[in-house]
Amino acid sequence: MEAQEYVERGKHLFIPQLSIDTVVIGFRDNQLKVLLLEFDGQWMLPGGHVYHHESVEEASKRILLERTGLAKYYLKLFHVFGDSDRSFPCEMKQIFEKIGMAWKEDIWINDRYVSIGYYALVDIEQAKPTGSSFTQKYAWHDLKSLPEMWFDHEKIVVKAHKTLEGDVSLHQHSFNLLPEKFTMPQLHQLHEQILDKKLDRSRFQKKMLSLDIFERLPELKEGVPYKRPYLYKFKRESRV
Amino acid sequence: MEAQEYVERGKHLFIPQLSIDTVVIGFRDNQLKVLLLEFDGQWMLPGGHVYHHESVEEASKRILLERTGLAKYYLKLFHVFGDSDRSFPCEMKQIFEKIGMAWKEDIWINDRYVSIGYYALVDIEQAKPTGSSFTQKYAWHDLKSLPEMWFDHEKIVVKAHKTLEGDVSLHQHSFNLLPEKFTMPQLHQLHEQILDKKLDRSRFQKKMLSLDIFERLPELKEGVPYKRPYLYKFKRESRV
Repeated sequence: MEAQEYVERGKHLFIPQLSIDTVVIGFRDNQLKVLLLEFDGQWMLPGGHVYHHESVEEASKRILLERTGLAKYYLKLFHVFGDSDRSFPCEMKQIFEKIGMAWKEDIWINDRYVSIGYYALVDIEQAKPTGSSFTQKYAWHDLKSLPEMWFDHEKIVVKAHKTLEGDVSLHQHSFNLLPEKFTMPQLHQLHEQILDKKLDRSRFQKKMLSLDIFERLPELKEGVPYKRPYLYKFKRESRV
Repeated sequence: MEAQEYVERGKHLFIPQLSIDTVVIGFRDNQLKVLLLEFDGQWMLPGGHVYHHESVEEASKRILLERTGLAKYYLKLFHVFGDSDRSFPCEMKQIFEKIGMAWKEDIWINDRYVSIGYYALVDIEQAKPTGSSFTQKYAWHDLKSLPEMWFDHEKIVVKAHKTLEGDVSLHQHSFNLLPEKFTMPQLHQLHEQILDKKLDRSRFQKKMLSLDIFERLPELKEGVPYKRPYLYKFKRESRV
């Protein structure tokens, strides 16, 4: 949807005062990455609103598909951002002026919004991000060194990261961040990144294998200088 | 707020199409109990809406205080009920007719609502429940044998129970369901009820004590026929 259309018609299309913000997390170069959209030198999360005809869950999946092209991922509602001062008139005005759109104080987008926060764990190599109504520029940023962000989006990313750290189902879902075939060192580095601490390598490996959710493949990893490691894949047929 | 006032003024007082439903859970007679309100032979959850001036969290605490008189509890946002068909015109009409209030198809209360589900773990002996705008009758029901309920509230209770079962922080928070001083057998029975399975008594006790979050008190439990058990309390100053 174009920005103009979005602003003109949104008031009638969506559930009022409710939004979705999605923290899309990937893993590359041994770093956790977050997908952000750029506007005028600052960054924002992919997000959107809930159409009257769709469920909140459907909306979250639609937004993720629109922004990343992905239909496979692990998606979790991790928090509701419900502070009474969640409206951003100054920043909204700035954005409207930059785009060259007429600004009115009482525009719907200027209301207080309760935002439902999701995080998505995705295979970064499979993602094909696109822009939003307001910007075509996106990039994957290090989760640990965020750029300057619009609204309260930095707070939302930090909260998502914290929740991910404490997520019980981490072992079951972290593979969503890896390619289909991965090595134990990759899994080890991923968990170190998520938990932000060193994990004893052999104890980690023993624990992971004891979960009995990975399958060791007959082939070894290619293109590694010496002692090629085994490749593993997740036992279930499909990722979800 | 009286029902009449609630219906007349609510449209302007609250964030539209957003509600809160709270599953208030207590523990008595070795059973998990849920606080329900009765209207015309069927039961509903305590709940409400978010005032424009308050945060979602503040609203959830206000509702809990209004319905139980409690300011101490463990409160957790466990799910967002966001299906697109979450409106209940037939049942709402029935309730209005019973109360003798004028019913209009386009009344705000008839909209689709996204409901934020909280569960609260409370000390049932400290709770002083009261009715709501629509009914003065309440009761504690067994969580495992629910009466007939209004709307989709049974689904919400079941989901809360399931979430509680899988809650990692169960060990840290289950004491909210017990009196200030409790015995290991009480804690054991509570966990068996929450998890709905038998737990080996001595292994459970060892695990609990290893958490180092309970303090054994010098006194023994009174009024027990033989072999009076030790009393414990939670180490932190105050319950949260």
